[in-house]
This record gives sequence, structure tokens and C-alpha cells, in this order.
Amino acid sequence: MSKTKNHILKLLFKNRNDYISGQKISDEIGCSRTAVWKHIKELENEGYTIASVHKRGYKLIDAPDQLSEAKIYAGLTTKTLGHHLVYQDEIPSTQKKAQHLAEDGAEEGTVVLADEQTSGRGRLGRSWHSPKGTGIWMSLIIRPDIPIHKAPQFTLLTAVAVVKAVKHVTGLDCEIKWPNDILYKGKKFVGILTELQAEAADVKAIIVGIGINVNAAIDDFPEELKDIATSLRAEAGTAFDRAELIQEILKAFEDLYKSYMDEGFGLIKLLWESYAISLGRQIYARTANGTVVQGLAQGINDEGVLLLKDKDGKIHKIYSADIEISSQ
Amino acid sequence: MSKTKNHILKLLFKNRNDYISGQKISDEIGCSRTAVWKHIKELENEGYTIASVHKRGYKLIDAPDQLSEAKIYAGLTTKTLGHHLVYQDEIPSTQKKAQHLAEDGAEEGTVVLADEQTSGRGRLGRSWHSPKGTGIWMSLIIRPDIPIHKAPQFTLLTAVAVVKAVKHVTGLDCEIKWPNDILYKGKKFVGILTELQAEAADVKAIIVGIGINVNAAIDDFPEELKDIATSLRAEAGTAFDRAELIQEILKAFEDLYKSYMDEGFGLIKLLWESYAISLGRQIYARTANGTVVQGLAQGINDEGVLLLKDKDGKIHKIYSADIEISSQ
Repeated sequence: MSKTKNHILKLLFKNRNDYISGQKISDEIGCSRTAVWKHIKELENEGYTIASVHKRGYKLIDAPDQLSEAKIYAGLTTKTLGHHLVYQDEIPSTQKKAQHLAEDGAEEGTVVLADEQTSGRGRLGRSWHSPKGTGIWMSLIIRPDIPIHKAPQFTLLTAVAVVKAVKHVTGLDCEIKWPNDILYKGKKFVGILTELQAEAADVKAIIVGIGINVNAAIDDFPEELKDIATSLRAEAGTAFDRAELIQEILKAFEDLYKSYMDEGFGLIKLLWESYAISLGRQIYARTANGTVVQGLAQGINDEGVLLLKDKDGKIHKIYSADIEISSQ
Repeated sequence: MSKTKNHILKLLFKNRNDYISGQKISDEIGCSRTAVWKHIKELENEGYTIASVHKRGYKLIDAPDQLSEAKIYAGLTTKTLGHHLVYQDEIPSTQKKAQHLAEDGAEEGTVVLADEQTSGRGRLGRSWHSPKGTGIWMSLIIRPDIPIHKAPQFTLLTAVAVVKAVKHVTGLDCEIKWPNDILYKGKKFVGILTELQAEAADVKAIIVGIGINVNAAIDDFPEELKDIATSLRAEAGTAFDRAELIQEILKAFEDLYKSYMDEGFGLIKLLWESYAISLGRQIYARTANGTVVQGLAQGINDEGVLLLKDKDGKIHKIYSADIEISSQ
């Protein structure tokens, strides 16, 4: 999309509640009114609904739920996160792409986003179902100056950012299941994957993958996911604008990230605990080597590690596991 | 190189002190004696000196200091490390190549090796001078099941492996300068770069880069390195077989790695401290953000972190820094 059209779209988004005159647009951007009119026509062809009223100007009525760089930029309110956006209609995996970009020196705040992933990845090398046009599949590259043992805290920071953004855009109150799932009424609709590139004890890059089922219909889910997964549309009964949700997530993430770097993990820990479904419940935690620890979830420590108290009162630190929450 | 020729070369290396008959080679490999003879001729063309004596057979007299997969394989005594070897005559950076391979799922023990790096990397994004045909430029991929905060210990493990292998092959006693340099009489000839790929708190891969000036002449060094760097040849007055040194390093690394996984960091810490130049000396440590800590190097802790005691008796933990050793 041309830079001018991009700019016009941004103005339309900014003035979404009002008309903005062609003259004002042409003044702000520094192009002719004819050029403005031409770009407006092009935007209409791309699926935007724009009201045009004589002597008042243009007003954005509706935007297609079609992801594009321009649309993301248009409503972006962050200082840096997402300003370097790598968007592709189809990609094997945003996470893998972001890994390679980070390795090659991509700047902090780079975001990789796709409309469809053909081999999306989840935790522990599992696959992640990422069909076209219905979800948010994105990976953020950040480069905080922190020691490596703090990197897992970013899974928790991300979960808090997503819960806040989902609440803001959809009104739904969702819950976090340690370490990296977000559920609504017990069904998963968000997965988070936090990966690290480090040199000795120094973080070089953290790559945060976020996958969200937004507008998918449950009927379209693979059979094995139908009972355990959901989408925002399935729960709210209405579709949502993915670009808006992306913008909110990036904003929430950036704010929490700033708080983290300025003030430490404290605020995020508090917020995380307030959203966590698992605390105070009986948990079965199965680690990668097959060990199962059963106990009462006490909370997380300052490294984001889950603390389970077993029946003998012993506290177990769970660094990484699949957890199952007892229904009692 | 063909598999058969490879196999013949391996037999010749194994029987380096004796003649091995063409019949025995053809029996072991399952090819004709004519085929054996043809492969021997090819090896001679590649620079190997092979004695051929009627009724006794073949004996390897000398091998060229030319790196090749076959030559590395031929003398490899490890169980797994280096069995998957990616060799290229020229590569931008073995570390970068190994990073991409690890990201794409390369198996534990994969080794990337090159005769020349055109943009070799050192710590903190610095470049590493890696001219053709004179050094060892390699990167190892390992996948230990350890939490991420232990990954920096592998810099120390690697340094110990290199010191042991250099001693074995050249007889030279060298010293380790924390965290990642190996010196001979105060001049650097080895750099180690330990990088990490992790998912949340779990190590996915550690990529260990090792750069060694083996046969370079000091006169060929860039001007700014002449006073601070050296090569094994410059110090010992004789050239060394790079393949042999590589094989020894891989063997030493594998043994220490096994000890590490079975018994923990204890043995490596002891060995490291016995080779360390900096312990008990006055140190200036300059961290990435420019802070300088001055103090007496007390030792390393179980995470491989350097402990400096300042003049007020306070102990500082140095995770990452450039250090300068006071001459007094």
C-alpha cells in the first residue's frame, strides 16, 4: 500500500467518530484533493466502507477484517512495538521467521504477523492450528537488557497483556492457566510461546509467539480440539476486528514491558495472579521427563515459577510442565 | 568423498603404525582389491602420502593439513559429537549456520566446521578474524536437558576441553582468561562463544562456537592484533594438524559433557580453576553498560559467575564483562 494511502487510512481511523474534509486530508498529507479522492476509491475497492458527504467530507464506517500492514499501522498507538511490521498472507511459522530475523539482527519491537500459518508451532514442538483469515498469529521480537533466568517472566507478561486487550476489545473476562494458556470458561483460545536467544548469560532476543482463535467457527476446528478449544466469536456470538485486537495487545504489551523494565516484575506478578485460574486449586503437573507432581497451587515466585505444595507440605518448584486442574 | 574412500581412509588412520594389506581392506569393506587400489591413488592425489609395499600393503605416512569431512571422520573417537558434520570450505559464520540448523531441528552433536569464515563472529557482536586454511572455526550443537541459567557453564566446560586438547596435541600449557578466552603467555589464540536457544525455562539448544589460531603466521595478522594475539604455530615453532586437534577437542568436550550431565559442574569447576589465569589477581571488569568493578578475583561460583571482592570486602557477581588483569 502506498505511503499516502496509508496516511489517509490512519486519519480516517483517528477521526472514526466524525467526518473529515477532503481539504483537511489534503492539507495534512500534502497531496491534491483529487489524489485523496483516488485513494479513498482504492480503499473502498479493498473492502473499506467510507461515507462521503458533500461539504462534510469522509468518514470511515467499516473496515474489512482483512489484515494488512496499513490497517495495523493505521490504529497503532505504541511508541515502537510493531512499527517495524513484517506481514505475510501465508507463512510456515511466524515464530520461526522471527527467530531467523532476530538472529540476523532485527530491531527491538519488530513484529511478524501472518493471516495463515501452514506449520504453526506451539510449546514443546507441538503444532498449532492456524487457519487462514480467522486468527491472530504473530511473534514479537524484544531485546531487554536482563539476565537469561528472567526471560520466562515474559510468558506471564504476555498473558497479562492479552487478557487485558481481550477484555478491552470484547468485554470477555478470561483466565490464565499456568504457564502459557488463556482460557474462557475452561476452553483454550490463546497460546503463548516464549523463546530466547542468548549469548552466555545475556539475553540477545526474546521471541514471543501469540496465537489467538478470534473468528473461527467451532465447527471448523479439528475434531480433537472441539471439546477443549474455543474462539472469541464462538463465545461472544459476534466477530471481532483482528487488527483492533492486535493493536490493543501491542499497546498493553508495551505498557507492561515499560513497567517491567522500570519497576520490575511486581505489578505483572500481581495482575497475573489476579487472572490465574490455577491458584489455590489442586494441580497435577506433568514435566517433560514424565514425572507427575500433585499439589495445591500456591502462587508463582519472582521468576514466574509455579509453586506447588504437596500433601506432606513440601513446596515443589515447577519450571515447565503440562498442568491439569482438579475439578474439585 | 565416496563412502568407500572414507572407510579406507579410516582404516589407514586406525593402522597408522603398521601396514594393512589390500586384501584385508577389501575384505573389511566388501569391495574389490582393484577398487581399493583406485581409492588409494585418489587419496594420494588429494595430498595424502601412502606407502605401498609389495606383500605388506598400505601405510599412511602423512596427511595434508587440509580439512575435509573424511579426514575428520577418519580419526574421530567420539560416540556422537561430530558424527553429523557440516563442513564447508567457506562460510560467512559457522555460528550463524549452526544457529539456523539448530532452529530447524539439527540433532545433538551436530558440528559445523569451515576452512574459512568471511564474517566470523566473536562475543558481543564483535568480528572474529578467520582466514583460510590456518585455523579451526567450528560450532557445536548440543541439547542438554538443563534449566537455562546453567547454560553459561558451557563456556567454561568448552574452555577446559580446549586447554586439555591443546596440551595433548601440542604440549603447550595455556591459560584461561574468564570468561571465554584462552591465552598462551598472555596472548590470545582461542575465543569461545556460547549461545543459547530456549523455550521458556528449558534449553532447546546450546551452540558453542570455537575459534582457534592454529597455523597462522603472526605477520599475517591484522595490525591491531599483532601484539595481543598469537597462534599455536607461532608459539611452538611448528605447524599442527588441525584435524587431529579438532578430534581431540571433540573427544575432550564429549567426556566433560558426560561428566557434567552425570555428576554436575564440580569436576569442570575444579579443572577450570586450575587453568585460570585470573584467580587471585586484581581485575578490572567492564560490563556492557560501561560500569567498571575493580577487585580481587575470588573464583567462580556454581553458575560459572566470576566473583570479585572489592577493596571494601564486598563480593560482586560478574555475569558478563571484559576483564583486564592488573600487571601487579
